[in-house]
Amino acid sequence: MLIDEGLEILDEDECLRLLPTVPLGRVALSIGALPCIFPVNFAFIDGVIVFRTGSGTKLRAALDHAVVAFEVDAVDPIYHNGWSVQVVGVAEEFADGETDWTRRIPVAPWAPGPRTHFVRIHPEFVSGRRIARDDDRTLAP
Amino acid sequence: MLIDEGLEILDEDECLRLLPTVPLGRVALSIGALPCIFPVNFAFIDGVIVFRTGSGTKLRAALDHAVVAFEVDAVDPIYHNGWSVQVVGVAEEFADGETDWTRRIPVAPWAPGPRTHFVRIHPEFVSGRRIARDDDRTLAP
Repeated sequence: MLIDEGLEILDEDECLRLLPTVPLGRVALSIGALPCIFPVNFAFIDGVIVFRTGSGTKLRAALDHAVVAFEVDAVDPIYHNGWSVQVVGVAEEFADGETDWTRRIPVAPWAPGPRTHFVRIHPEFVSGRRIARDDDRTLAP
Repeated sequence: MLIDEGLEILDEDECLRLLPTVPLGRVALSIGALPCIFPVNFAFIDGVIVFRTGSGTKLRAALDHAVVAFEVDAVDPIYHNGWSVQVVGVAEEFADGETDWTRRIPVAPWAPGPRTHFVRIHPEFVSGRRIARDDDRTLAP
């Protein structure tokens, strides 16, 4: 087990196994030279992260073909166990119906209002950490 | 109530009220021109976000005097209600004991191993959104 400052380094297979086990991730990108994070509900299908956005031009323009970071985590606030997985890749807008699998993407928008734009991220770099403690209360899964 | 694509826009007072109600936030910054997100347990004291880091030189160097985004959220995965608050500011490393209040900062490290470096973020821009739904199951607080 590789340890980095008290954190177990997860291999890529384990990262990709953990990634779809939570419903919400966070996307980080730059908008107007300032860093920006926003939470999204997402799906992980055929190795690609997919989420919806509204037509807000600032976000859409910033997302399209930008290199973004996508992060998911699960942390137990009581026992302080948990893990986080991070993906870096190019975000790309695509049309609903462009491929067969868009029809079965389980990313119904949580907020009201139209969110008709799909964004996908192909993972280029995947990394993850788990809090490695002596006790064995590692957060499932 | 201001609405932006189905999301209620929170005013700064409400954002700053919500910010310390969760134990974990995410910091986004660029490391070597690539965006990066990492989760941190933090404290919000006297209007400043404070967290600890290890001595990992890459992260510490990248954080010091970088403009970063800091995000907290609380989302109910069943009812799909929730909110998120985002802060942008300059991150700055400081020494434990530099000010009186560092002695009472409740940011004990969750992971094992030394995390003796403190980082603070002075919020320059604060923004927040809440999922605005017709039903009244808005996530507390």
